[in-house]
Amino acid sequence: MRSIGYAAKGAHSRLKPVLFDREDPKANEVEIEILFCGVCHSDLHQLKNDWGNTVYPCLPGHEIVGRVARAGNEVRRFKQGDLVGVGCMIDSCGACPPCKAGEENYCEGPKSWTATYNGPMKPDGTNTYGGYSDRIVVREDFVLSIPDGIDPAEAAPILCAGITTYSPLMHWDVGDGDKVGVVGFGGLGHMGAQLARSLGAEVYAITQTPEKEEAARALGVDGVIVSTDKDAMAVHAESFDFILDTIPYEHDVDQFAELLAQDGTIVLVGALEPNKPIDNMTLAKKRLSVAASLIGGIEETQEVLDHCARTGVRPQIEIIPIDEINEALKRVKGRDVRFRYVIDMQSLRAQAEEIVAAGRRIDDPEIHAQDHPGEDPHG
Amino acid sequence: MRSIGYAAKGAHSRLKPVLFDREDPKANEVEIEILFCGVCHSDLHQLKNDWGNTVYPCLPGHEIVGRVARAGNEVRRFKQGDLVGVGCMIDSCGACPPCKAGEENYCEGPKSWTATYNGPMKPDGTNTYGGYSDRIVVREDFVLSIPDGIDPAEAAPILCAGITTYSPLMHWDVGDGDKVGVVGFGGLGHMGAQLARSLGAEVYAITQTPEKEEAARALGVDGVIVSTDKDAMAVHAESFDFILDTIPYEHDVDQFAELLAQDGTIVLVGALEPNKPIDNMTLAKKRLSVAASLIGGIEETQEVLDHCARTGVRPQIEIIPIDEINEALKRVKGRDVRFRYVIDMQSLRAQAEEIVAAGRRIDDPEIHAQDHPGEDPHG
Repeated sequence: MRSIGYAAKGAHSRLKPVLFDREDPKANEVEIEILFCGVCHSDLHQLKNDWGNTVYPCLPGHEIVGRVARAGNEVRRFKQGDLVGVGCMIDSCGACPPCKAGEENYCEGPKSWTATYNGPMKPDGTNTYGGYSDRIVVREDFVLSIPDGIDPAEAAPILCAGITTYSPLMHWDVGDGDKVGVVGFGGLGHMGAQLARSLGAEVYAITQTPEKEEAARALGVDGVIVSTDKDAMAVHAESFDFILDTIPYEHDVDQFAELLAQDGTIVLVGALEPNKPIDNMTLAKKRLSVAASLIGGIEETQEVLDHCARTGVRPQIEIIPIDEINEALKRVKGRDVRFRYVIDMQSLRAQAEEIVAAGRRIDDPEIHAQDHPGEDPHG
Repeated sequence: MRSIGYAAKGAHSRLKPVLFDREDPKANEVEIEILFCGVCHSDLHQLKNDWGNTVYPCLPGHEIVGRVARAGNEVRRFKQGDLVGVGCMIDSCGACPPCKAGEENYCEGPKSWTATYNGPMKPDGTNTYGGYSDRIVVREDFVLSIPDGIDPAEAAPILCAGITTYSPLMHWDVGDGDKVGVVGFGGLGHMGAQLARSLGAEVYAITQTPEKEEAARALGVDGVIVSTDKDAMAVHAESFDFILDTIPYEHDVDQFAELLAQDGTIVLVGALEPNKPIDNMTLAKKRLSVAASLIGGIEETQEVLDHCARTGVRPQIEIIPIDEINEALKRVKGRDVRFRYVIDMQSLRAQAEEIVAAGRRIDDPEIHAQDHPGEDPHG
């Protein structure tokens, strides 16, 4: 079926409106009319090919909330009109031990899990296209239920920023009595801090940006540490039980590891690249651990949605129309977004006639050409 | 009381025989006549000032086995003639939570723990001097009992190489059913591999040196992986539950992290410096942890001595006279030692008359001068 969305044809291209086809839902799939899609920092990484694995054209978006438009006849849990969500995954092998344990995000099948966009190429040569579009078709097993009481636009960032921070907090058993630091106070950080507090921890936001202090306190953190303030860092040296590090690019982890008490753990959830060297002496003298964690399983994603509904944890969002997406990505890179952009997909539908009239398909040779060589449209 | 030992006056100096004074034992201290002292790779690091904290003159040695010569009148657990050991520590604050929990190695007191040699300067300005000497005086609380059935020379390396590998195996609960890799098959590695096996794990030695395969198999490992053999590494990719990394210098941890299964941990016990950058993607895609651990507490050191006595785990040693120490350190650096040199301190006593006659004291200005500038006597 004919779909519309915003896609980029290369690392130096702007996202532009395109036409493309989605397959009709199979018996175990639902078609979702997308209402909102969050703008994740990883969308920017993927568009720029920062991880070297981007397949162009790239149509991002993995914080998707919408309504079921059609449900295949084997679908049991959803019916037309239900408010649902889709996060970072739309498939996995289903047979390996992690899949059977509900940790599809660590799927050990031959293709591992399938990403909602930029997923492994299917046999027919198509890529997966994400939520910067008007509709998506997903297997029932990878569709989340949006609980009552959460605004659909606010639910979107929970599907990546929420689960990515919630999962390590649960895995490392963070809770009552723990002193927790959250490094980086953007999309992931502001969710991680609220979630850690909702689990009973004493939470400090650790940020380079003094301007974020007020917003962090408004979200209920117990304290704010400006990481460039050596005295403030020294006051908290060797005192944290757990640190969630959400910085989405290469950085120095040592300065934060030095904040950990004996047997503390720092978990990286933002950067997915080689980091600056870590001093083993820093780790050894307190028996510290540096770990990393990647999103979370489907069952746990439902759990964090329900947890947010129950506890009042919400992302701070700014709703934008889709034709502002390139400007928004520039601001994501510049780190002055506070805290999550969410695209209102009605703005895409409003352009539908125009997009259809322009007739530019996602696989047109024109869209594969580099029309802005050397330019960084989101720089 | 007058003592003799081998000390170096600077990073470019050989170890040479010297005279020095030890204080007489106080009421809670024992004087130990040293029989054997192991040669640890960290002795070489310390002599070279690789960690930037060496106070010269430096008199190394922290794998000490000897007999109690005198016991202060408050000493309860030891009497003259007892076979005892001293490891890496001779003191700690005794009052902080780690000390009270028997983890003096993570002492949070104002001076942390006191190292057996190159320890914090005392108020009177003296440094601590280690086991490359004829005697040592140590507080009863930091003296270990050497169990019956262990040869005194074989007991020595358990006091550092043994506890340094045993402690993380216990902390991370390694045992039955675990697949464990031991990276580096030298002093620490060959102890770690035997200890992990004695705890019920399936153990692979992971080494750059194919020549070590036979020795590793003779010590009972279940397999040997030559780390430069990409095919062999690929066969074992993502399969280990736990890896103990004993490489004592900067190296690439990523290649070993890639051997870990989901939720696996690699613990570094050899290198105490910044390492090569670790790829967070390697960690995130399997939720892995990189940790480091530093020796072990006194109670646990006694435990590993008793464990070795009971299970038959023994270091492979080569006994040397002390006048071969400089040559031995060269071979430690060259990595062709297999697996632990132990100095027979009778060889020092045999030189006593000569050392006294030469009259060179450890604090002679001459020994502070750099007589071999630019030369690396152990290179």
